[in-house]
Amino acid sequence: MEKEVKKTDIGNLGEFGLIERIKDSTVTRNPGTKKGIGDDAAVIDTGSNLMVVSSDILVEEIHFDLSFMPLKHLGYKSAVVNISDIAAMNAIPRQLTVNLALSNRFSVEAIDEFYKGISSACENYKVDLVGGDTSSSTSGLIISITAMGEVTQEEVTYRSGAKENDIICVTGDLGASYLGLQVLKREKAVYLANPDMQPELSDFDYLVKRHLKPEARTDIIHELKEAGIKPTAMIDISDGLASELLHIAKESGHGLNIHSDKLPIDDLSFKTAEELNLDPTTCALNGGEDYELLFTVDQNDYEKIKYLPDITLIGYITAKGGDARLVTNTGDAIPLKAQGWQHF
Amino acid sequence: MEKEVKKTDIGNLGEFGLIERIKDSTVTRNPGTKKGIGDDAAVIDTGSNLMVVSSDILVEEIHFDLSFMPLKHLGYKSAVVNISDIAAMNAIPRQLTVNLALSNRFSVEAIDEFYKGISSACENYKVDLVGGDTSSSTSGLIISITAMGEVTQEEVTYRSGAKENDIICVTGDLGASYLGLQVLKREKAVYLANPDMQPELSDFDYLVKRHLKPEARTDIIHELKEAGIKPTAMIDISDGLASELLHIAKESGHGLNIHSDKLPIDDLSFKTAEELNLDPTTCALNGGEDYELLFTVDQNDYEKIKYLPDITLIGYITAKGGDARLVTNTGDAIPLKAQGWQHF
Repeated sequence: MEKEVKKTDIGNLGEFGLIERIKDSTVTRNPGTKKGIGDDAAVIDTGSNLMVVSSDILVEEIHFDLSFMPLKHLGYKSAVVNISDIAAMNAIPRQLTVNLALSNRFSVEAIDEFYKGISSACENYKVDLVGGDTSSSTSGLIISITAMGEVTQEEVTYRSGAKENDIICVTGDLGASYLGLQVLKREKAVYLANPDMQPELSDFDYLVKRHLKPEARTDIIHELKEAGIKPTAMIDISDGLASELLHIAKESGHGLNIHSDKLPIDDLSFKTAEELNLDPTTCALNGGEDYELLFTVDQNDYEKIKYLPDITLIGYITAKGGDARLVTNTGDAIPLKAQGWQHF
Repeated sequence: MEKEVKKTDIGNLGEFGLIERIKDSTVTRNPGTKKGIGDDAAVIDTGSNLMVVSSDILVEEIHFDLSFMPLKHLGYKSAVVNISDIAAMNAIPRQLTVNLALSNRFSVEAIDEFYKGISSACENYKVDLVGGDTSSSTSGLIISITAMGEVTQEEVTYRSGAKENDIICVTGDLGASYLGLQVLKREKAVYLANPDMQPELSDFDYLVKRHLKPEARTDIIHELKEAGIKPTAMIDISDGLASELLHIAKESGHGLNIHSDKLPIDDLSFKTAEELNLDPTTCALNGGEDYELLFTVDQNDYEKIKYLPDITLIGYITAKGGDARLVTNTGDAIPLKAQGWQHF
């Protein structure tokens, strides 16, 4: 007779609950391991500079839809997603390994297209593809990438470093990738209903590009260095601004206020959100896949940061133990809510 | 009208053909990248020691069968497979990242079991779990692990370093993991045909353990260091001895001879191969998943190596451009044949 085994649904834990659970049961033994689970990347002391390491897995039908994602873009984006995590440590990306599992419906030419995208990202970000593994899969395409980067002991930036009164900054604009995805999904539905209809995407070029071919903000890492600014905390925006703000609040132990009227949202995002009956602020807060950088700087850096292009000041770090809040146009302060994946 | 696109089946290329194709289209740009695609691990110069990085992907139904592979063992083995690649560079394993994609048939308790195995391997090999990612999948379990290790500039060992007259050595014994898998498959078939039958595995303990819970030979790395032996070339045996010998031959540009009567095969492997109508030499040459180390040493190290326990001398490196050959008991020298996965 089999004994009754307790079975808890993973959905009950959620992504962040699962990470916490793994983190809590993990001990580190090597003095070189400076930071394990719990930031954008692990940090390894190699004896001279630090090496930062980040790894992500992307699954067909969960993270991407090949019916509107060309394989070359997918290769590019898979690399970028990991390079973005390296940038979020204030580090310079250096190497990548790429693991693939794919079913026999993929041809050699299809794999070539994917690697052309990887290669193009490697060229743009001066990163080297140094290894990986390829296997068959029983269904679909799974991509697992590990990125490595380099940073000095002085410059490495953790989520935990934010302190009271620090200024909260974000690069680029938010919500466009999410809206691009909604447009792609709508056109796919139209096409499936009537294959003679051609997709009308030209009006949404910017949004679609933000979704299919995002860029990592390594330019900002260089810009901040040149301006003599060392962020106190940094994270990249993959799950959405609100989720990343909550990580910074939690890891630093501080509250924060951001102002909804300061959120950088592109005009086309506003217009498209309206067309799709979506709230542009919610898209900016919870859309995700922006791959912009969210970071905090000391008040003393205000004069330096305010003139830098493509960086928006959206709020402040508040006292220890405080809440993470969104201050609305009407002056109400409402608590931010977390979003991780909930795809179980 | 869609244009005709050429589609070549991946099976035509095979694993090694695919790796060559990716390698050939890859350039490296960072001076820190000492070795990219083409060895057990990539090698990164961090300014003091070298960091070696290896990454593997394991797919349910392709690489493992959960009907006889407990999740804890699977976690352990997944870590070991990657740690073994680090050992094959003559390096000390230090860190791991673990990416998982899993369907909702896995419970939180199942994931806990898997991570218990990872954790146990981390403890045994003094390795730190430093990061990773977890995602849902539409079917089955996919595991992608990246291992990192440390080695000095002087001690790093590549596949390419073998030279004429070097002695070819192998650790442990070969073929047992493959035979263990055959036994497990046989018992599974019996069970499926008649669920009242209990599996009879106790006679095959050693073989089954070699398959379900292999170990990486980091002990040999320490032993060789202590004995003052620096291997000229090294590789771990994952695809089978013959395949790994061909890698050393190809990368070093030399031929080699190994002797079939020298191959280390356990008595139980002999007996079981006979019972299953398999040739024990073929199991040792092509079985794979032994995770033993195959390495070459200079003739001058003969006196040092011959007394080391658990190391067998199986042959010699021959002249540049020669063939990789197996010398049989009858004195015939037959060319070795490659085996990679062919599961597309």
